[in-house]
Amino acid sequence: MSAEAAPPQDRPVLLREDHGGIATLTLDRPQARNALSEALIDALAAELASIAADRAVRAVIVAAAPGPVFCAGHDLKEMTARRADPDRGRAYYADVLARCSAMMQAVVRLPQPVIAAVEGLASAAGCQLVAACDLAVAGDKASFCTPGVHIGLFCSTPMVALSRNVAPKHAMEMLLTGETVPAEHALRMGLVNRVVPRGQAMREARRLATLVASKSAATLKIGKEAFYRQREMGLAEAYDYAASVMVENMLARDAEEGIGAFIEKRPPRWRD
Amino acid sequence: MSAEAAPPQDRPVLLREDHGGIATLTLDRPQARNALSEALIDALAAELASIAADRAVRAVIVAAAPGPVFCAGHDLKEMTARRADPDRGRAYYADVLARCSAMMQAVVRLPQPVIAAVEGLASAAGCQLVAACDLAVAGDKASFCTPGVHIGLFCSTPMVALSRNVAPKHAMEMLLTGETVPAEHALRMGLVNRVVPRGQAMREARRLATLVASKSAATLKIGKEAFYRQREMGLAEAYDYAASVMVENMLARDAEEGIGAFIEKRPPRWRD
Amino acid sequence: MSAEAAPPQDRPVLLREDHGGIATLTLDRPQARNALSEALIDALAAELASIAADRAVRAVIVAAAPGPVFCAGHDLKEMTARRADPDRGRAYYADVLARCSAMMQAVVRLPQPVIAAVEGLASAAGCQLVAACDLAVAGDKASFCTPGVHIGLFCSTPMVALSRNVAPKHAMEMLLTGETVPAEHALRMGLVNRVVPRGQAMREARRLATLVASKSAATLKIGKEAFYRQREMGLAEAYDYAASVMVENMLARDAEEGIGAFIEKRPPRWRD
Repeated sequence: MSAEAAPPQDRPVLLREDHGGIATLTLDRPQARNALSEALIDALAAELASIAADRAVRAVIVAAAPGPVFCAGHDLKEMTARRADPDRGRAYYADVLARCSAMMQAVVRLPQPVIAAVEGLASAAGCQLVAACDLAVAGDKASFCTPGVHIGLFCSTPMVALSRNVAPKHAMEMLLTGETVPAEHALRMGLVNRVVPRGQAMREARRLATLVASKSAATLKIGKEAFYRQREMGLAEAYDYAASVMVENMLARDAEEGIGAFIEKRPPRWRD
Repeated sequence: MSAEAAPPQDRPVLLREDHGGIATLTLDRPQARNALSEALIDALAAELASIAADRAVRAVIVAAAPGPVFCAGHDLKEMTARRADPDRGRAYYADVLARCSAMMQAVVRLPQPVIAAVEGLASAAGCQLVAACDLAVAGDKASFCTPGVHIGLFCSTPMVALSRNVAPKHAMEMLLTGETVPAEHALRMGLVNRVVPRGQAMREARRLATLVASKSAATLKIGKEAFYRQREMGLAEAYDYAASVMVENMLARDAEEGIGAFIEKRPPRWRD
Repeated sequence: MSAEAAPPQDRPVLLREDHGGIATLTLDRPQARNALSEALIDALAAELASIAADRAVRAVIVAAAPGPVFCAGHDLKEMTARRADPDRGRAYYADVLARCSAMMQAVVRLPQPVIAAVEGLASAAGCQLVAACDLAVAGDKASFCTPGVHIGLFCSTPMVALSRNVAPKHAMEMLLTGETVPAEHALRMGLVNRVVPRGQAMREARRLATLVASKSAATLKIGKEAFYRQREMGLAEAYDYAASVMVENMLARDAEEGIGAFIEKRPPRWRD
């Protein structure tokens, strides 16, 4: 959560840089602790929509402008200003939270894998953004919290992503106390995949992204979608669904090429 | 599980002490290894119902009379005596298990956070009670087990809480072997939040409870309820629900006060 | 996944040895990296069906012929050959995956506990087999992977079992990168219960199996079935179900004997 001054509106709040099949999205509101203002939520949603349709992108990194805070969550100044609305902000809050939740789910539904590269503090909806990513890498001074209880506003939407990443008592401790969890503990909880020395999170995220980008994009898309869908099914239904996914995958060009290359002991040449 | 002699009936089996917004419930049947007799189950249910309606209570600690056993689970002497019933105890067992399950769910549904402070062995329904709490702290000589298989009675109801706390292979190992898990392993599994030196569990539980009690009670109530409800939903439904919870929370007095205090860099004064 | 030459068809691909109430199933296609050919899937399914009806078997160990690979997953040579079918193999793949998924679910539904004893690499459906078991023990040089992305074939069916064992970011890392996870990391993730020195996995699995086999088989059957059923329910439904299971368990012979023995401080004599 951020109550800092908003940045001037004449510069973009989100940067995108594409290189070698990897799109890097950088939250760029360092003066406002990279808080998820309306403009930043919308920019993220727009870039995710653009990437979803961009076959040149094979992996995505979510990063933030350097500084002590990776992302402070929602922009409280912006939200508080709407208490002056005739409905005390109700319609506005509902709209912003719906757009933010849609953006977080767009990360989950994106065909390409998304990797968070975290340095500094990921707080509230900033922690949610990390939890929503498929993978996450953190510098060893990074930290994580859901501190809404400090201001009377329970981190209910961040909780949705957090509680699907870590054991319930770990999630509850973060949510009820608001206390900050260091990177090493986040690693043990399963909230991040790797902890690296401070300043190396982007390098490690790029290594993972490069690895992922070397795979068949069509195959990753099939698998990522199936992962999140089958998670919500019972065991028997999940097996039926996954088997049907795998049959289609077997018949796709890249599996034919990949399995052929494996048997012939040569590198595959993906078409997708 | 306990087969020890029942304590005399002329003293309470559960103690309650309130201090600084924290209600401490102490299982007090040390002669019977603090086993969950009918009387103790009912006393817990009654105190939880009382606390749910008590706005002066902002956090709850569940502890036990000192001794080698935190809680031995159901009182097997009491249960076995009912094998003499005309229906071999069927109606009685169904009734006791329904009351015990309702009590465990009352912990989950309690508006206030509940913290277990465990010294000694938490066994069977005693382990379930720890698993049902929102948070748990253990002394480093504490231990946990679901040993029903030793006596031909699988810990099926404890399993409900346990399997919602830890990874399935960890839960299965405890359930199938009945072996005792030391506190440090329980920590790694996610069954407890903290391990502290023996004898310090209550102190650490009080520290956490004090921290929690300093938050807005109305906010904690909103968040705790939402946590357990959204866990049973699919992702999209959970986000819709959590967003609606958060809109209401934004419009509540304590969020207005808390966010205002945050922006004004002063401590909040909760009304709830 | 294996592309090695198939073994001669004149010897069995699965060994079964029963000893002291423990049935040990050994994948025995070392020339083909113990890959799950049709013949091996069917042999596993047949032995599991046989064991399910065999009251002399109280625990099952799944092991593999010695070598660098515990199980390489599906037999890709066998599958690739069917690309020549008029439907490019569609019907065949659907059939093989359905039979494999049914076999994996037969492990879950087996009344007896199943323990994987892993030395070497458990890959793709080989990793799935370990994940599907109730418990798993690994030698310290064992490793685990779901490398389908290397060949354009996402490990969608292995994912069903894997994602029900470990945290989502851990599962995703294995699935998206295909990288191999060493035994110690698999232990931290919850994919295996114990890591022992190389070559000792079978010894430790036997220790666990002997422990499990000393319990009432009827009780283990009740509990194992209830474990997997209640996992797919909401909390209230799970408690109702588990309480009803426990009432029946209380009225079964082995619980009467076990509780009686406990109260009388003598060893129980199971009838089942």
